[in-house]
Amino acid sequence: MTAKWNVLQQHMKDNGVHTLLITDPKHVYYLTGFLSDPHERFLGLVVPLGEEPLLIVPALDEEAARAATGMERIYSHSDTDNPFQILSGALAGSIGTLGLEKDYVTVTRFEALQDQLGISKYQDIGPWLQHMRVRKSPEEIVKMRHAISLIEQVLHETLPKVTAGVTENELVAEVEYQMRKLGADGPSFDSMVLFGEKTALPHGVPGSRVLRTGDMVMFDIGVYAGGYASDITRTFAYGGITEEQTRIYNTVLQANEQAIQAIRPGATFASIDLAARNLIEEAGYGPQFMHRLGHGLGIDVHEYPSIHSLNHEKLEAGNVFTVEPGIYVPGVGGVRIEDDILVTTEGVEVLTSYPKQLTILGS
Amino acid sequence: MTAKWNVLQQHMKDNGVHTLLITDPKHVYYLTGFLSDPHERFLGLVVPLGEEPLLIVPALDEEAARAATGMERIYSHSDTDNPFQILSGALAGSIGTLGLEKDYVTVTRFEALQDQLGISKYQDIGPWLQHMRVRKSPEEIVKMRHAISLIEQVLHETLPKVTAGVTENELVAEVEYQMRKLGADGPSFDSMVLFGEKTALPHGVPGSRVLRTGDMVMFDIGVYAGGYASDITRTFAYGGITEEQTRIYNTVLQANEQAIQAIRPGATFASIDLAARNLIEEAGYGPQFMHRLGHGLGIDVHEYPSIHSLNHEKLEAGNVFTVEPGIYVPGVGGVRIEDDILVTTEGVEVLTSYPKQLTILGS
Repeated sequence: MTAKWNVLQQHMKDNGVHTLLITDPKHVYYLTGFLSDPHERFLGLVVPLGEEPLLIVPALDEEAARAATGMERIYSHSDTDNPFQILSGALAGSIGTLGLEKDYVTVTRFEALQDQLGISKYQDIGPWLQHMRVRKSPEEIVKMRHAISLIEQVLHETLPKVTAGVTENELVAEVEYQMRKLGADGPSFDSMVLFGEKTALPHGVPGSRVLRTGDMVMFDIGVYAGGYASDITRTFAYGGITEEQTRIYNTVLQANEQAIQAIRPGATFASIDLAARNLIEEAGYGPQFMHRLGHGLGIDVHEYPSIHSLNHEKLEAGNVFTVEPGIYVPGVGGVRIEDDILVTTEGVEVLTSYPKQLTILGS
Repeated sequence: MTAKWNVLQQHMKDNGVHTLLITDPKHVYYLTGFLSDPHERFLGLVVPLGEEPLLIVPALDEEAARAATGMERIYSHSDTDNPFQILSGALAGSIGTLGLEKDYVTVTRFEALQDQLGISKYQDIGPWLQHMRVRKSPEEIVKMRHAISLIEQVLHETLPKVTAGVTENELVAEVEYQMRKLGADGPSFDSMVLFGEKTALPHGVPGSRVLRTGDMVMFDIGVYAGGYASDITRTFAYGGITEEQTRIYNTVLQANEQAIQAIRPGATFASIDLAARNLIEEAGYGPQFMHRLGHGLGIDVHEYPSIHSLNHEKLEAGNVFTVEPGIYVPGVGGVRIEDDILVTTEGVEVLTSYPKQLTILGS
């Protein structure tokens, strides 16, 4: 933890920031080890320049915060307290230039900081934290491997239930039961199981659609475990599929592999996206791959960076992100194959290990 | 839907607002019937004064948005588009004074509106939408009854699994499996099942704690179904419990009932909170009831209003909120009893119907 505080203190010195107010619960977890969902209540980690940090938590969470952080300066507020007054009281000196997360703080809270605390100068510190979080430490990689291992076990345990007559919703129930049974904290996003024509909707919602022979079956699922997220997509065929469906599958698989082959420190995120996109375009399905290649993965299931064709930032060892090309053809169906990958000093390690060849279930 | 647009147009006229930009996905659902989780992508419902509304959605969601809303003016953006440029292009005239949700819009987006669209005048419309949503329509009540009925069935189906040796996590798995099996869209918040000393943590996290005779067992669970949330807490005893635990249970039960008896149109939210709080204070447990009495319930599981001792707003027919007093004594355990209630023109209807008398399980 000390190393992270030192990085923040250095950023503050370099940028003339006197106080940090960190309110994204995921950033608070990253820095303190205290993971919570405060809902609409105020949670704030305050870092004064050259001083120990302090934490302002809802009264409900005070005990848990003390146990998780070992921090001494923890202030709690009840549902009738004004947390900005507590913040003001806790800070001995002036706040000066405030560092805050512009991508998280709402206009309401921003105005409260201006009106109630008299903040007039501020800077966005979201990028500092994003850049800290984007290089995963060995301890974080261990947690991510665990979250990935759990979701792959969930998929393995669920596949025998993919039988004629089952519904999408029943498989979602099974998937989430297995998550809990295997010890995950829960899904890291709305679990998605889609059949047949519904696989052509990249954001389709599972329902009472019944599995029939000839359907594509798409699982896009992930768990939170130990505060870290996994995220995997595999698409199967149930019974025989058509030539066009097979061609789509193999195109997506090649695109997934091309992108992974392009991954190495120093490459741009755009080049990874384009490695997959160009292959899909050449196969004639360009317009049917209408989303980015992937997204950063870590404490959030979608986090910095966004892997798309205009992101010219460079990959670094320690980056973890998804590679998930897809082709979605209304009336024919969709295929997406998603892996979680780690950029290493040598190149790439694919953290997901579930087989990717076209698998015909129910045969 | 027309009635809601008319209310918004009237608010705009009364307040000199020329354009609304609504970005909270729950408000978008309330107004259009399109329910989605855009994650970090931009979703915006734009309402120009005297014109038809238009919707800006991620490309991934365009088809679903068209199907759900029947709206004609839907604009989509890909992951490499700037949604603010699309917004600017879609609006023929000037934006004028902009109405936005200060409690939802981040500083980043607020600055983009100022810098990229030249917005200089704006008003907070969060309260307009809160006040529309706080009076549930008969159609909304039907959906809420369904979400409540589902979670009560879940609790009923799960209780037989409360047996010696089961863990909190195993019961969470069972609860969430039943949710899916019964057709819910999923939990409306992190499902909570706590045993013994952990019940003294109002925001405790389920883990591998094993059930033992003499434990209190607390379920705080809810589902989303049809876009609406339910939220119920029941506390049981497993095997015999002590005199003090019994006294705590009966105090919380009386506090729950006192609060419910105080509910009628025209009463203040503070008076409802105090009806429960005074009773608990008289019993000597005032400091051990350290949270508000409850919260509004609807499309969000925690929504306006907050039911606490300083909220002097008045109850109106159509309000739906939780009544959830609790007492938490470290080393002894905690009890919370939570109902979902509807304010009616006559007084109150308790929507939850699960029995509340102290129940000893496993005997």
